[in-house]
Order: sequence, then structure tokens, then C-alpha cells
Amino acid sequence: MVQTKGYAAQNANEKLTPWNFERQEVREKDVLIEILYCGVCHSDLHCITNHWGESIFPLVPGHEIVGRVLSTGNLVTKFKVGDLAGVGTGIDSCRECEECKSGHEQFCIDGVQTYNNLDKKGNPTYGGYSDKIVVDADFAFHISEKLDLAAVAPLLCAGITTYSPLKKWKVGKGHKLAVVGLGGLGHMAVKFGKALGAEVTVISTSPSKEEAAKELGTDHFLLSKDEEQMKSAFHTFDFILDTVAQDHDINPYLGLLRTDGVYINVGLPPKPWEVSSFSLVVGNKTMTGSGVGGLKEVQEMLDFCAENNIVSDIELIDIKNVNEAFERMERGDVRYRFVIDMSTL
Amino acid sequence: MVQTKGYAAQNANEKLTPWNFERQEVREKDVLIEILYCGVCHSDLHCITNHWGESIFPLVPGHEIVGRVLSTGNLVTKFKVGDLAGVGTGIDSCRECEECKSGHEQFCIDGVQTYNNLDKKGNPTYGGYSDKIVVDADFAFHISEKLDLAAVAPLLCAGITTYSPLKKWKVGKGHKLAVVGLGGLGHMAVKFGKALGAEVTVISTSPSKEEAAKELGTDHFLLSKDEEQMKSAFHTFDFILDTVAQDHDINPYLGLLRTDGVYINVGLPPKPWEVSSFSLVVGNKTMTGSGVGGLKEVQEMLDFCAENNIVSDIELIDIKNVNEAFERMERGDVRYRFVIDMSTL
Repeated sequence: MVQTKGYAAQNANEKLTPWNFERQEVREKDVLIEILYCGVCHSDLHCITNHWGESIFPLVPGHEIVGRVLSTGNLVTKFKVGDLAGVGTGIDSCRECEECKSGHEQFCIDGVQTYNNLDKKGNPTYGGYSDKIVVDADFAFHISEKLDLAAVAPLLCAGITTYSPLKKWKVGKGHKLAVVGLGGLGHMAVKFGKALGAEVTVISTSPSKEEAAKELGTDHFLLSKDEEQMKSAFHTFDFILDTVAQDHDINPYLGLLRTDGVYINVGLPPKPWEVSSFSLVVGNKTMTGSGVGGLKEVQEMLDFCAENNIVSDIELIDIKNVNEAFERMERGDVRYRFVIDMSTL
Repeated sequence: MVQTKGYAAQNANEKLTPWNFERQEVREKDVLIEILYCGVCHSDLHCITNHWGESIFPLVPGHEIVGRVLSTGNLVTKFKVGDLAGVGTGIDSCRECEECKSGHEQFCIDGVQTYNNLDKKGNPTYGGYSDKIVVDADFAFHISEKLDLAAVAPLLCAGITTYSPLKKWKVGKGHKLAVVGLGGLGHMAVKFGKALGAEVTVISTSPSKEEAAKELGTDHFLLSKDEEQMKSAFHTFDFILDTVAQDHDINPYLGLLRTDGVYINVGLPPKPWEVSSFSLVVGNKTMTGSGVGGLKEVQEMLDFCAENNIVSDIELIDIKNVNEAFERMERGDVRYRFVIDMSTL
């Protein structure tokens, strides 16, 4: 077994504290990765607070992992010792179902989540707030040495979550894209939107985000509480990417879409939306959801980031400050992602 | 002015009774059409009962119109006297806005509906439950002499409403399409789905629809009240076209979609839907709406029907029985569209 140090919540709503545990041996198709950095995702908070009602304790969060390969199983050719490697939201799947065969491993019904899940032997999985991880090499990604590694970590969840729908819906030159919410996901959506050639507007309830949005290269800023601004943006966007995780009314945003416009949701607000059939029928409008991305697409996104010099804007923290980071994240007080420097463990 | 005979509701919830009125003169770009047949659409009932709250009385319904050209304005080259012509849900638009220029005249903000609307001079428009209509030739369509004319009438609304989204979403060979509700719209969706090469399932709450669905050439029937049948259909459809006009919960249907599946709504239930973000995010699913079609597309649909010998299944009625027909339509007691024989006027 692989002795591992990490931080865990021992019960719902308890703070994260140091915890030592064992990971499985490195099997013939696995790689053992020394974790250098791990991003702090909103889902980590949902899980340690048992917000979604399915948490397994002790719980070691973290699915935005960047590190270096320490050892490889006999059959691994994809990585060699010393290579950079990333791990995202999943570490295994069946490889045989329709989802796996079509590059949607993230939806495999037998898929294994990086943490807060059971692996195929029925053992709990533990995430990246730790010094090492063992995963099937298929679920580890190549990371370019060119980029700031700490700032690469959030690409493994926040990055792919926003990149995937923009690619699926072919967002690009000539399109007007609005991004709702300027947090971990939202700021990545702005970067990808710009890199793909779209004209990007940030929509936010908070006027304080205007300057931040401009600094990221956003073309326009729309304050959603300002009725005049909303009126003048009526029927102007081809795509709206909504990254907000809290409950909110999306009907005012649907009015901002042009005919054939597409509303893409990647946040997971707990309450259902209320949407009038008229809002979609008039203007042939579309509402869609998108959940992370498949293996091939995650690698494509990481390569796209290396080519376009895209990383996340982060605040690097000591793992001892992770509980404080959660509190700040809940208040939206982060630009735009906390990343844990695992050398502080 | 053109003296016209028709049937009108004089007030909300009053029965339709004979009413004589005047239509505008034939202007240089207009055609005067002798109406032979007019379909009875659910919207007609919504309007005469003031269900949507915007009715203008006296109200002459009808937007599924087939007839023959009686005279043409000086500048009309599209039609000559004696030609067959159809009129659908709209009779005018601005021709200059983004919608008009992109072939979505049905969404032009200055568009004029065939009935229950004001024309550009501010006069009320009157629909096809009448012996004549005057429209701009751009808003009249060519009808093939090959088809049963009475059965062509419903194509002008029920037909285009279901054809348009199936074309937009490229539904065809290799796709599994489910049609929810087997009424005027639903039975057209089945015919178009089959003609486009899809494998078609009808989903209904009523077991009595199974035989009818098979007679229409449907491949499968799914009884939505049968839990076992719903379970076995989980995650199997590429597209679901929902034609139901009454309030209903769509969440059970979203579960029937495969990853990347598309839920298309063409009914207009009064209450908003409640849709969980998880239902769309898991499986990258899409919900969309679609409202009739633009001018070019309506003509394309009519030509497609002529090529593929597609018409509506209808029950031809005497206009004196139109009130009884509304009652039967409300109970779902029609296969599948009432069409008024205007020679009975």
C-alpha cells in the first residue's frame, strides 16, 4: 500500500485537518503521482458540508491535481518517471459502455470519481488534498512544462467544464458570448471565449466585477441589476454560459438571447429552474447543460491552453489555510481560484 | 373593400356564429384567395376563450388555410388567378429586421398574425374560418395539386411546427426519435420523423393510442404511466419532440434521453416547467423550443410533403359543427385534425 498524507473532513461540516491514509498499490496500468498543486473547487465545499447528501467520511477533497510521476506500472507507456501529470474529476470507468466508447467517460454509470466515491473494489476514493495519488494512466493527462503549474491545476475541472460546451456548440468568431458569474468557472469561460474568437460580455450582479472583467480582456460588462442595461442587451447574445452555483432566476437572461440562441448551464444550483415554454418557443431558443468533459477532450483542452498560453488566475495558499480559503470562497472573495501548494503539507 | 362571410366569436367564451365583415382591398402586392379549407388548431380555441389574455373580438380564427387565387395585385408574379395557395400563421412582417433577413419572419417584432392581431394600419386581422382572405403574396405558399387539399390545410401550422425543429436539429437516419402526445402536431411529427429516416416511438399517457400509433407507421409505443416501460426506455432516445399543450412534468422524459440528447418543445403549456440543472448537466442534455417556421421553410415543408406524399389525417367538417368540434378537440377526440369544408359556409 502507498502511505499518504493529506487533509480530510472527518464528518460533515467539520474543518479539514491532517490525516494519514493508505492508497492502493500501483497496479500494472497505474501511475503514482507526487501531487505538487491542487485547486480548490466549489464542489469540494459541497461535499465536505454534505450539501448534495451523498458524502463518505473521512473525506479528502480535490480534483484539480497537478504533479509528477513517481513510478509507473509495468504496462504503462503513456508516462515515464518524472513526467508531469494531471488528474481531474474521474479516475476510472468501465471502458465498454456507450459513454466510454463515445468519449463521455465522465457519464459512465460505473465511473469512479476522484474523491467521495467507491472504487471498483468498493474502497473509498480520496482526492488531491494529499501528497500522492495512484490512478490508471488513462485517467492522467499530459501537462506542458511551459505553463505555471500551480495555475494549470484549475484547468482540470474549472477549465474543462467551460471549454467543453464552448467547443460542442462551436462558439467562435462572429459570436457574442455572455458569461454569467465571474468566479473560478466564469473567468476561465472568458479566457476560452476570447481565445476562440468570440466577443465576450461578463454579466454580474456586482458592479465591483466590472474592473476585474476588463482586466481579463472582456469586451463588455453588463450589470444584471441595472434594468436599462438589461433592456439594451435584449436579444443580442448568441450564447450565454451561466457558471453560477447558487439558485437564481434565469428567465431575464433568456430574454438576452437572439433567435436560435443557446443558454449553457454549468453551475449546479440546488433548486430547479422555472422556465416558461414561451421563453424557448419564441425565438427557437435552447437551454442546455454540460458536465466537465471526457478524457480525450480534457487532453485537447490542456494542449489548447499550452498553445494559447492560458492558465487560471489563482491565489496560491498554504494547506494550513484551506479552511479559511473555503470561507472566503463562499463569500466570493477569491480571484479566481485557490490552489494549494502541496509542499506546505 | 372585399365583402367576406365567416364565423366569429363575438366575445370570450361565446360560440362561433356567422358574421359578415370587410377585408382590405387587394393592393398591388396582394393576392385575394377563395378559401376552400381551413384547419382547426388548438390555438384557435386558446384565442376564442381568451386563454392567453390578448384576444381581440369579434374574433375570426383559422391559420391553416388552403384555397385558390381569385385575383392578384399588379406587382404579383408569384401567383396567377386559379393557382392553389396556402396561408399559415402570419400575413405580414417588416422584411428589414434580423429575423426577417434570416428567414425567421415568424419572430419579427412587427409581424402580423393571420388573426387576432392588428395589421400595419391598426385594423384587426381575421382568420380562415371565412370564404376569402387578402394577403401579401410573400405570405402565401404554393400548394401541389397532387395532394388532398383538405388534408394539406393542417400542414400550414401543425406541419411546419413539427417539421421545422426536426430539420434544424438534423433528425434522420440512425436517430431514435420519441414523440410525446399523439394529436394534431404529434401525428405530423410521426410522419415527418419516419420520412426523414428516424426510428420513431410514440409516448402517450393513454393505452388507447397504441393502435393508432402503429397505424401511422410508428415503430414503437411507450405508455408513460407504465413504470417498467419507462425504465426500459431510460437513456435511449436521441430526440424527444413534445407536442403536449397541457401542463405536464417533463423530468421523467429528460431521463429517457441519451447523452447529448435533445428535448424539443412545441406545445405551449401555460405553467412554467421545473427543470433541475442536474437533469441537463449529467449527459450534456438540451431542452429547446420551436415556433412554427419562416416563409422559406414553410414552402420547403410543403414541397417535401408533395414529394413524400405526406398530408395530415383529418376529419372534414361542416362549419355549422365547428363548436362541437372544439368540444371534441378539448377531449382529444379527433384523429387528428378537424378541417372545415368552406363550401358549407
